[in-house]
Amino acid sequence: MSQFWSQVVHTLTPYVPGEQPKLQNLVKLNTNENPYGPSPKVIAALQREAADTLRLYPDPNSSHLKAAIAEYHGLQANQVFVGNGSDEVLAHVFQALLKHELPLLYPDITYSFYPVYCGLYGIQYQTVPLNASFEIAIDDYLRPNGGIIFPNPNAPTGIPLALSEIERLLQANTQSVVVVDEAYVDFGTESAVSLIAQYPHLLVTHTYSKSRSLAGLRVGYAVGNALLIEALMRVKDSFNSYPIDRFAEAGAIAALEDEAYFQQTRQQVIATRSILVAELQDMGFEVLPSGANFIFARHPAHAGEQLASGLREQAIIVRHFKKPARIADFLRITVGDEMQNQALITAIRSII
Amino acid sequence: MSQFWSQVVHTLTPYVPGEQPKLQNLVKLNTNENPYGPSPKVIAALQREAADTLRLYPDPNSSHLKAAIAEYHGLQANQVFVGNGSDEVLAHVFQALLKHELPLLYPDITYSFYPVYCGLYGIQYQTVPLNASFEIAIDDYLRPNGGIIFPNPNAPTGIPLALSEIERLLQANTQSVVVVDEAYVDFGTESAVSLIAQYPHLLVTHTYSKSRSLAGLRVGYAVGNALLIEALMRVKDSFNSYPIDRFAEAGAIAALEDEAYFQQTRQQVIATRSILVAELQDMGFEVLPSGANFIFARHPAHAGEQLASGLREQAIIVRHFKKPARIADFLRITVGDEMQNQALITAIRSII
Repeated sequence: MSQFWSQVVHTLTPYVPGEQPKLQNLVKLNTNENPYGPSPKVIAALQREAADTLRLYPDPNSSHLKAAIAEYHGLQANQVFVGNGSDEVLAHVFQALLKHELPLLYPDITYSFYPVYCGLYGIQYQTVPLNASFEIAIDDYLRPNGGIIFPNPNAPTGIPLALSEIERLLQANTQSVVVVDEAYVDFGTESAVSLIAQYPHLLVTHTYSKSRSLAGLRVGYAVGNALLIEALMRVKDSFNSYPIDRFAEAGAIAALEDEAYFQQTRQQVIATRSILVAELQDMGFEVLPSGANFIFARHPAHAGEQLASGLREQAIIVRHFKKPARIADFLRITVGDEMQNQALITAIRSII
Repeated sequence: MSQFWSQVVHTLTPYVPGEQPKLQNLVKLNTNENPYGPSPKVIAALQREAADTLRLYPDPNSSHLKAAIAEYHGLQANQVFVGNGSDEVLAHVFQALLKHELPLLYPDITYSFYPVYCGLYGIQYQTVPLNASFEIAIDDYLRPNGGIIFPNPNAPTGIPLALSEIERLLQANTQSVVVVDEAYVDFGTESAVSLIAQYPHLLVTHTYSKSRSLAGLRVGYAVGNALLIEALMRVKDSFNSYPIDRFAEAGAIAALEDEAYFQQTRQQVIATRSILVAELQDMGFEVLPSGANFIFARHPAHAGEQLASGLREQAIIVRHFKKPARIADFLRITVGDEMQNQALITAIRSII
C-alpha cells in the first residue's frame, strides 16, 4: 500500500501462473507446454533474426504475420489482431470489447485470468455454473449480458463444446460480443473460426504457446469481424506500438508454414493422451473428456492435494486448484511425451 | 464505430509511431534507432536461444534480467520492473501510479504518447509550457498535481535537464510520483538513477531500443523504490504474466554484460552528433542543444515541411511534427553513422 498507487492498484488480485521452476530433471506437467519443441524450420528462421537488423524497430503492424494468419484461416488481414501472447490479446479484448453496462458472463470454473482482467478494467461480471457434468450449458447464457467469454475446450476441465452449440449461442445472443478462447483447440476440438464470416459478433483467440510449441516466444492472436479487430487496434495503438518483436514475427510465420510438423506433433499429443487416459482409468481415476493437451482427473479414494504433493516428492509437477470446492480433488495434468507420461503413471502407482 | 466497442474505444486517439518503411536503401533518420547494430556478444546469446527450449514459457518474473539490471545500477532486484519495450512500461506506469484526483503534469511539447495513455486510462492532465528556449522550467511544476512525467533529455527537443534541477523538483514536490523517462539518457544527459535511494517518489524509465541498439527486441525497464515497483508488478500480473520472451531476456542480459561495446558505440554517436550539429549550423540552421541521439533543428529561411519533403524525394526520411505551431519549422533528425549524416548534409545543401 502506498499513497503513490493509483486507486485500482489497491483492489487488484493478480493472476498467479503455473510455477516455472528453475530446477533441472523435473517432469513438468503443470503449464500445458508442448512436449515437442518447435519445428526445425522455425529454429532456422529464428537464428536468421539474430542479426544487425535488431537495431531497427519491428513492423508496428506485424503485417507479414497478419497476412500469414489470414491466409491460413481463409480470412482478410483486417480480420486479424496479433499480440504478445494470447494473455495480452485477451487483456485488450476485455478492455476494448467487454466493458459494458450489462455484466460479462463466463463459466464459474474456467481460466482464472478472466476475473483478474475484470478487476483491472472495472468490468462487471456474473459467473455461470458449469452443469453437473462440468460442461458449459449454452441455455444458461441466454440472458441480458454485456459480452460472453469462455475457452473451448474449457480450462481446466478440457471438455470441448460442439460447434453446433456455439452457433446456437451466436444465433440466440446477437447484441453482445461472444469470445471463444481457443488456446487448446488444435488438440481435438472443433474451431469456431469457420463461423466468423456469418457472425459479426464472434471473436476467436488463438495462441502459439501450445500446439505451435512456442510458449517461450509469446505470440497470440484474435480473428473476427474487421470492426472488432479495429477496436483492438485502437487500444493496442494507445498502449504499445510494437508489441511483436522481430523474433516473434519471424518465428510465428515460419511455424504456420510448416503444416506437416504441426499436424504430426498435434496428432502425437492426441494419441499419447488416449494412452494416458486409459492408464489413469485403469487405476480408478475419473477423467473428464478432453479436447486439449491436458486432462482433468480425480481419484475416488485419494484427495487431489495429497496426490499433487506425492507426485512433487518424486519430481513430477502437475497443477492443483484448491478452489472451487467442486474441483478440489482434480488434478490438471499436461500430456507429456511417452517417457514423461510413463514416469507419471509409475509415480501414481507408487502413491495410490 | 460499433455497438460492440467498449465506451473508451470511441474516445481514443491512438499514437502514431514514426514510419517503418519497407523500402530498401533509405537513409532512415526518423525513429532514433542506433546506427550501430547490437554487440556481437548479444547476437551470439540470441542465437543460442533459438532452441528446443522455446516450447517452455519464459520466467514470468524475468528474474535473471532484473538481477542484471539491479547490479548494473547498484540497486536491489525489487527496485526493477521490466516490460515489452519502454512503451509498455510507461503504459503500466500511467495506470498504476499516475491516475489520481489531481491532474498529471507534463510538458506541452514532449513525447506524444503521454496524452494517449491518459486517454486510455481516463487520467486528468495539464500540460506545462516549455519556456522560450524550449526548456523544462521546474518552477512551473510546483503546483498541486497527481504526478509529474517528462523525458530527460526531452523529446523531440533533445534538450537535457540538469540533475540538480531534478533534485530540486523532488525536494519541492514530495506528495506525488515524479517519472523521469530516460529513453535517450545515455547520449550525454545526467541520469537520475543515482537519486533513487533518497527519493521514494522517483521512478526512472529506460529502454534498450536506443543506446543498446535493440529496438527490434522490445525491452524497457523502470527503476525506483520497491513500493512503486510493487504497483507496476500488480498491474503487470493482472495484464500479462509473461511479457518478456526468451530472446528478450537473454539478449538484454548479454547487452548489459558488454560494457565496452556500449561505451564505444554511444561515444561514437555523441562524436558524430557534434560534427552533424556543426555542419548544420554552418548552413544557417538553429540547432537546439542535444543530450540525445537526435537533434532538433530549423532553418530561418526554409519551412520544416518543405525541407522534410525535399529530403524524402532524395530517399532520406526525418521526422516532422506539424503541431504545435511553435515547433512546426523544426525537423527531428536521428544521428546516423558518418555515411548517413554525409548523405543528409549533401541533400540539404541541394535543397537550401
